Order: sequence, then C-alpha cells, then structure tokens
Amino acid sequence: MRLSKLVGERVKEAPNGASLKSHILLLRAGFIKQVSAGIFTLMPPAQRVSKKIQNIIREEMDAIGGQEVLFPVVMPRELWEMSGRYHSINDEMVRFKDRTGHDMVLGMTHEEASVHMALNTVKSYEQLPFMVYQIQTKFRDEPRSRGGLIRVREFTMKDAYSFHTTQEDLENYYQKAYDAYVRIYKRIGFKNFITVKSDNGMMGGKVADEFMAVTPAGEDKLVICSHCDYRSNMEVAESVKDENDHTVAGQMEEVFTGNAHTIEEVCTFLETDAKHSVKAVCYQTLDEKLVVAFIRGDYEVNEIKLSHLVQSNLYPVDVEQRGLCAGNIGCINLNLPEGSFVFYDTTIKGLENFVTGANKPDFHIKNVSASRDMAGVDFVDISLVKEGEKCVHCGQPLTLNRGIEIGNIFQLSTKYTESMGLKISMPDGTVKEPIMGCYGIGVGRSLASIIEEKADDKGLVWPMTIAPWQVHLCPIRIDDDNVKAITEELYRTLQKEKIEVLYDDRNLSAGIKLTDSELMGVPLRIVVSPKTLANNEAEVTIRATGEKLFVPLAELLSELKDMIAGEIEEIEKDL
Amino acid sequence: MRLSKLVGERVKEAPNGASLKSHILLLRAGFIKQVSAGIFTLMPPAQRVSKKIQNIIREEMDAIGGQEVLFPVVMPRELWEMSGRYHSINDEMVRFKDRTGHDMVLGMTHEEASVHMALNTVKSYEQLPFMVYQIQTKFRDEPRSRGGLIRVREFTMKDAYSFHTTQEDLENYYQKAYDAYVRIYKRIGFKNFITVKSDNGMMGGKVADEFMAVTPAGEDKLVICSHCDYRSNMEVAESVKDENDHTVAGQMEEVFTGNAHTIEEVCTFLETDAKHSVKAVCYQTLDEKLVVAFIRGDYEVNEIKLSHLVQSNLYPVDVEQRGLCAGNIGCINLNLPEGSFVFYDTTIKGLENFVTGANKPDFHIKNVSASRDMAGVDFVDISLVKEGEKCVHCGQPLTLNRGIEIGNIFQLSTKYTESMGLKISMPDGTVKEPIMGCYGIGVGRSLASIIEEKADDKGLVWPMTIAPWQVHLCPIRIDDDNVKAITEELYRTLQKEKIEVLYDDRNLSAGIKLTDSELMGVPLRIVVSPKTLANNEAEVTIRATGEKLFVPLAELLSELKDMIAGEIEEIEKDL
Repeated sequence: MRLSKLVGERVKEAPNGASLKSHILLLRAGFIKQVSAGIFTLMPPAQRVSKKIQNIIREEMDAIGGQEVLFPVVMPRELWEMSGRYHSINDEMVRFKDRTGHDMVLGMTHEEASVHMALNTVKSYEQLPFMVYQIQTKFRDEPRSRGGLIRVREFTMKDAYSFHTTQEDLENYYQKAYDAYVRIYKRIGFKNFITVKSDNGMMGGKVADEFMAVTPAGEDKLVICSHCDYRSNMEVAESVKDENDHTVAGQMEEVFTGNAHTIEEVCTFLETDAKHSVKAVCYQTLDEKLVVAFIRGDYEVNEIKLSHLVQSNLYPVDVEQRGLCAGNIGCINLNLPEGSFVFYDTTIKGLENFVTGANKPDFHIKNVSASRDMAGVDFVDISLVKEGEKCVHCGQPLTLNRGIEIGNIFQLSTKYTESMGLKISMPDGTVKEPIMGCYGIGVGRSLASIIEEKADDKGLVWPMTIAPWQVHLCPIRIDDDNVKAITEELYRTLQKEKIEVLYDDRNLSAGIKLTDSELMGVPLRIVVSPKTLANNEAEVTIRATGEKLFVPLAELLSELKDMIAGEIEEIEKDL
Repeated sequence: MRLSKLVGERVKEAPNGASLKSHILLLRAGFIKQVSAGIFTLMPPAQRVSKKIQNIIREEMDAIGGQEVLFPVVMPRELWEMSGRYHSINDEMVRFKDRTGHDMVLGMTHEEASVHMALNTVKSYEQLPFMVYQIQTKFRDEPRSRGGLIRVREFTMKDAYSFHTTQEDLENYYQKAYDAYVRIYKRIGFKNFITVKSDNGMMGGKVADEFMAVTPAGEDKLVICSHCDYRSNMEVAESVKDENDHTVAGQMEEVFTGNAHTIEEVCTFLETDAKHSVKAVCYQTLDEKLVVAFIRGDYEVNEIKLSHLVQSNLYPVDVEQRGLCAGNIGCINLNLPEGSFVFYDTTIKGLENFVTGANKPDFHIKNVSASRDMAGVDFVDISLVKEGEKCVHCGQPLTLNRGIEIGNIFQLSTKYTESMGLKISMPDGTVKEPIMGCYGIGVGRSLASIIEEKADDKGLVWPMTIAPWQVHLCPIRIDDDNVKAITEELYRTLQKEKIEVLYDDRNLSAGIKLTDSELMGVPLRIVVSPKTLANNEAEVTIRATGEKLFVPLAELLSELKDMIAGEIEEIEKDL
C-alpha cells in the first residue's frame, strides 16, 4: 500500500472530546471516523487490523469444532417474544416497523436466532453437542457511548452458541471455549488480561466468566488476589472483612445530632470513626417495595448483590413518603411499611459501640452493640469489596483494578430452548431441552483495548499478529534518484515475498514521515536514505522497543522475515 | 466436518412456497433457514460458500487497488439529507428513532458514507484516484421478497466507491472494475453471464452496466444480439423496428365499434391486424400531469423510457376525469388538458391505413395515414423491444432472455461530492468536486444464481472454487470395521493435507447417504465400501458430470489433489 493513496489523514492534535488513549490515537492516525454517537467507519488500516483479529477468532473457534453461520441483523418481534426478551430488554434494543407494519428488532445478541435455526433441524441427541458462531454487525442503543471503539452502539461481534444434552457436557465444552479465548487474546498480543467471575445480567443461567483487559482506562472494577488465582468483577466479588474490634459495649444512648445527616457529618459531629457507625441505604423495587440496606459507615452497598436478593432492579426512593426519617434511619426500633425488605451487611456483625440513626429527627443512637442489641438478625454480604481486604480463598490481601471487558462466556441452562420449545430425542426415547452455552467477543473493543495496553507517547504500537502492515517502508529524500529506485525495488520485492508493507512514497521531510510512522505503529520500520545507502544498508527500527539496527541491503529480506517470524513466535509461544 | 454434527437437516420434499430451483435446493439441503420474509439464516454450508465468494471478490478488489473499509449499517438522517436521498427514497429504506429521538436509517447503499469518510481526510488531487470497498450487511425493505436468496430484504453486499479528478480517469478505472467483475464471476464458476447497459435508477449519473446471470429464473428481461456484442436490459434496449408497409392509404372514415375498447377487441371487430392499429396508453406524473403515449397496437410501452421523457415516475390515471373517452382515445383530433404530455412511438412512423380511437364513445377511425394525417409529429422510441427485431448495431435479429442481476457498476458523476461538499485542491490551485464511480455485488444472490446455472435434478452442483467442501467422503457400511478404519484414516489424511472434506460418518443406508451427497453438491465424492476395499480402491464420482472412476487407495490422495487443481484450473483458465 502506498501511503500517498491511503485514505485518511494523520493529524497532530488530539481531537475534541476524546480522552482515552485508544480513541485519540485511532482518530489521529486516520484509523476511524465518527459518523454518529457510538457509530464509526473503520478506515482501511483499522479494517485490516479488525480482519486479522477476526481471523484469529475464526481459527480458534474452528479448532474447537465451531461451525460458522450468519444470523440476520433484522429479526421479527415474534422470535424475541418466544424468549420473553422482547419485553424484558429496554431501549437498548432498536425496534421498528417494516413497510407492512410488522414489528422488527435489530439483534443485540442471537440466542433466539440460534435456537430458531436448530428448531426442526436438530432433533436427536446424536446431533449434539455442536457449536455455531458468527461474526456479524450488532447494534445496541447504548445510552452512553464513549471512548471511541471501547463503548459503541454499532460493532462487529463474534457470538457463539453451543448445545448440549447434559450439564456435564456443557461444562466440558465451556472449559474448551475458555481455553480458546485465552489463546485468542494471547494471539492478539494481550499480556495483561484476566478472567473474572461475573454477573450474567440479561442472559439467564448461572455461571459466567468475563475476559478483562486490565487497564486504568477500563470502566469495570476488578477485585484481584495477587496470591491465588481469585479474580472477580466487583459486582460479584467476595472478601473476608476485617473482624470488628471486641470492645465492651457501653450503654445505648440517644444523642442530639441536629442537621448532621450523612454518615460523614454524623461521625464528625460525634467525633467517631465511620468504622463505628451503621448507615442505611434505601431503594425501591420495580413493584415499589421499599428496600433498606444497613451497612457499616465506611462501606458501600453492592447494588448487584442486593438486586439479586430482592430479584428486581433497584430504583431511587423517597423515604419520607414511606414514613421514614431521612438522614436518621437506624437499625434499632425501625418500623417499616408492610412488605418492605431490610438487609444487614456482614460488616455489622460483631460490631460494638456504634452509632446509627434514631429513626426520628435530629437524633442518633450511640453505643449500639450488634451482639447485644440486634439479636436474631441474619447478616448477608451486600457490601463492595475494598482494597486490602482478604481473599476468601487464600487469606491474602486483595487489590482493586480496572478493566475493559473484551469477551464473555456464559452457561445458559435451558432458558432459551425451553421457552422456544426446542426438544431433542434422547437414547432412552425421552425428549429434553438442550442446555446451552454462549460465548461473545467484541472485535472492535479488543482492537481498542490492545491499544490501551501497548500504545506509547508517540502513537500506536501493533503486535505483529494483528498489525495492519508488518513493515513500514520509509525512504528519506525520495527525491534522490538512488533512494527512490532502491525503495521502489524493495517495495516490489517485499510485496512479492508476501510481506505486508506500507510504503511512504511521499516526498516529505524526514520529520513528518518518521512521526507518521510512529503514530501508525507498524511493528518494523525500514528507513532508506542517502546516508544508509552510502553504507549499502537500511535502518530497521522495532516500533515497540525503539531498538534500531543497520542491515546490509543484501540481507534485509531475510532479516525482515526472521524478525517477523520471531515476533509472531514470541507472541504465540505459550499457547 | 463430520456430517453427523453438521447443523441442518436434508429433506426430500420441496418446501411450501418455494418455486425457484435455488430456493428449493438451498432449503432441502440444509443451507439456509428462513427467519422472516426475505430474511434468512445462512447455515454452515451456505456460510462456507458465501465466504469463498467474498474472498474471490476481495482478491479482485485488492488487485485493482481497492482499500477495504467498514461503513456503519446504522446512519444518522443528516447524512442522507445532505445527498437529498433521505426524502427521495421511499419505504425501501428503514427509518427509526434512537433512544434520544434522533432519526436514523439502515444503510441501503453507502455513497453518503464514503463521501463522509473522505470529508476532511481527502483534500488534495495527490490522494486521488482511490477506491474503497466494504463487504457488509445491508437491509432494504423490498415489497416483494422472493426466490430464497434471489430477492431478499437483508443481504451481504460488496459495495465499492471510487474517486477521481477527471471523467477520463473515472472511465479508465470503470473499465478496470468491469474487468475485475468479469474475473470475479468467472472465478465463481459462471459460464452464462453477460453485461447489459442499464438504467441507473436512484443512483444518479449516466453510464451503468449490469452483470446478469442468464437464466429463465431471472426477473429481468434482457435483449441480446447473438451476432454482435449488443446486450441490454429491456428497460433501455433499442432495436430497429420493421418498416411499416407502404400501402396507399384509403379515405379516413369513422366506424362504429360499440363496446370494443381494447385494441384486441377493436381489431377483431374490424377484422384488422393489430399491426394496423394505434393505441393510447395513459399515465400521470407525480405532479398529476396527464401523459398519453401512442404506440402501434402490437407493441407495449417501455415505461422506463417514457418516465425519462417526462422526468417523473408514472402513475395510473383515470382518463375520464381528464375529459378523455376511455377505450376510444385516438391520435387524430385529440384535445388534451393544458400541460399534458403526448408522445408518438416510432412504430407509428410511416404507418398507413391504421385504426385509432375517434375520441368519442362507440367510434374509431380507420384508414389513418401517419404520413398524410400526422404531419409535423415527432416520433420517439417508447416501445419495448420484441424478439426478432433487428440490432441497431449490426442489423441481425435480437433475442429476448431473462437474467438475474448479480452485480452492477455505475459512473456517478459528482452528485454526491457536490451535494455533500467534498472538494479537493487541484495542481493549479483551484478546487473541484471529485467524480465518483460505484460498484456493487450481491454475495447471496451470486450464490443463488450459480445454483440456477449449475444445479440438476439431483441437487446442488458447486464449482470447485466456491464449494463448501471439496470432497465428500462417503463410506458405505461404516459398521464394517475395515471400512470404518480406512475411512477414518482417510479423513485424517485429507484434513492434514488441507483438503476440505465433509465426512458422512453416519451409519445409514447407501441410498440415503448417496442421495444426500448428490443433494449437497460437493464436487468430488469418495465412496469406500467392502466392495471397493476388496479391490483396494475407492470410487470417485465427479458431481457435475456423474463420471465415476476407481482409484487405488495408494493413489487416492494424489489423484484427488490433481482433480481439485484441475477443476480450479479449468474454471480460471481464461482470466
């Protein structure tokens, strides 16, 4: 590819509104162009990277027996009514009427389509297990698209669906898919990714793992044990809480706290540490039942765990309307409307001498004792894990990190096969619904996440396995006949040898050309100039390390081949 | 691939509602599954074929300098308002509001997106010419989807857009694209395809060629000269009409024709040949102007040509409301409302002694003479070509055929670059709008059309270049230990040698297995059975010809490799 004809322009300035490294660099290097919020055109270099990522995914899916299919983007309402998701999914799913007035949706995911495909075409246990996958465009109307390709509305996704006769068979296959995912991310070039247990949200089923690129740019909070292999999404993370100190409790006593309402205000007013306080956090369920969560003052409520306990999403509530005293709610002598939920976090267990609301204006109670004054209470885990708490598996301290979800795998049970009526005949003559697994990877998000891991101050840095080109051929002083002739000859040779080469054939200054090459991040750069030619050599620079070497022209081709093969080998060595 | 695990079922019966060969066979062989009207899931074998077609397209687009990109499926209204097509395209384009109430569309084609990509990133003549292409899902809300993958609503399309500084440069590139298309269809395996000049419909611009698979299943009418290379879509076809006979005209005379209204009724009543009659065909324009077309009674109006003359689509009209006498409209003494259009087809020129309406109830006029009674009239070509008329280029008889449009290329001029404000600086310091070309191929329609050309009574017949698998390994009596051992060994060997093999590992009767293999259409079938093994050989059948040969097991691998290479060579020999 001649750079002079490559569509796209490289620019110096970080564009307005872009804050993430990957977003800024993809725009600056001419890899993407925004068409609308969360909707991008992939320009030629990005599409080259995307296709390489897709090919890696395809090879690994094929290697675990995947059969590639293509499900439709547009589906009829009926398909999504069978599973119940036409109504349970909110505005994230685009709906429209076709010209005949029929309700259609844009597929966000294809569990329904995969079961539909199997209906009437898969009938016997002998056809199981199987896995189908597709690489296809999806549209999700995200309320907050952000960060270039990190959180978009339209994206290319690999989604896979497996069908099994038994839970054991699913679990075996799930492990295979897990291993395939590890190989995929390694081959893409990720060094810093982990898997975490996760909440499976709208998918149904019980077991789910998320693959996370660990990076400060991530929007997911991760809890990681650096000692054992415990890793979890904050949403479902567990920890051993510090034991509360066993001081003897004093006498319970109401104290005036006036306008002090937040736990910080109350503790400051009473000169108490937040560790000796219990606060109430209130919500309501979808059917407007009040939910009150008591938790130690220095902890935050894990809303995902709480929502599982009440089996509903959680919504804000006006507690005064429910007869409670906002800012003074406490766990002693609380009267709740009938049908309310109340939960006490494990951080309160054994806590002595703490402050909590008095359930009336201007007063709190001090010297409360959990063991003495809350007899019979069940404590449940509804708190977010904190840095430094102990791992439930090995007792070592936990660390908090951030990550970008680059893939996920789910055990789905029979949610879709049951609701859509897919039955297969078993060897004993009975029929049963297959058990499903599903497996997703966002191609564009993986592309952006590898940038977050690899890119540096100068620009993009592509691993050899997914680089848009392997070699950036960069003559300096192309107006020099000798430079031009030798570079053109090199360009032809490299193409003939199937080395992917981006050739900067522009007659521009060394400064512009070298800066552009660093911005675009092709792994190997060859500089040919009057100076290098005086020694009959070319300068080869490794983009990732900045290492430079001077290679005699006669050895350049074989040296490049070795370097390319060497980089790929390095990336793929532990598969 | 083991057939026992291949998703999909092969069935004997032609499914309800399917009439085209390709539709029936794709369903019967388990290649596709309908999800909604004009919306299909491509099951694994069809997706394999589709990917091979896509790869051929990609290689040929890359070979003419194409840069692959990915434009979005969902685009904002604004982009389509810039070109004016938000309003000029009808219900075929899906529109919806996103969660913020913003108007969005599903892209039917991507001229707008390609110009948008170039805005601010292509600025100088030095960056031209370039061509970008994508292979992406498109949705068009066709009113009449039909024929399986022939006319669908959702489909995979390759669309390409080129940008040029001069018309000459566009024309040079257009020829390159034309040649690339010819190579693509040849490599897919088409023997019977042609190009025809076409109307360019909603695309804008002037020159357009359609690539047509010639088949009775086609819905497009084609006019073909078997002598020279004239080929045209009926919509724009021309011909030399037979000269009218130069009999001396008799006296014009009104004759009673009573209830005879259609030209057939009138001619029967007056015992005249339709060749000696002139009928009127009436329409109205979008702005309700009356359009009257006179044409010889045995001809039909070419509505596309007529619509170009009035620069509007044509709509039905109630002529009585416009003061005309339905069934008795004639070309003599006709009074039309002001602002009406009237056209006389060239088939009337020189016609003597003909019948036409008298413009009053119950009467026609006979013995009309075009030369005597229609002095000063301009005759224009608004008739559909008939079989046997003469070619305007070589005078030889024309034949009519039917075809399926499998691709099209357009010269677009500056419709989109002007309306969207894309300007580039020229060497002389001026700025100008680039001239565009665009180039489309429907992947699924090509897949279906090759079936229309190749398939036979027994099922699908795939050319080696796009076959889902190259070899169908079909042991008979797989319950025989020797058969099983040798077939499994063969399966492993073929896979190791990168031969794509579908292995029918099911323990079923020879009848079912052989019938299935013929239905699925894999180019080469290997039968291994106790009988063939007794001679230490396998039976190889060529699907396309039915030719059988017996090959010693020791030579099987090299024989298969030769046959595969030979078939590909045969297909690609004239590129």
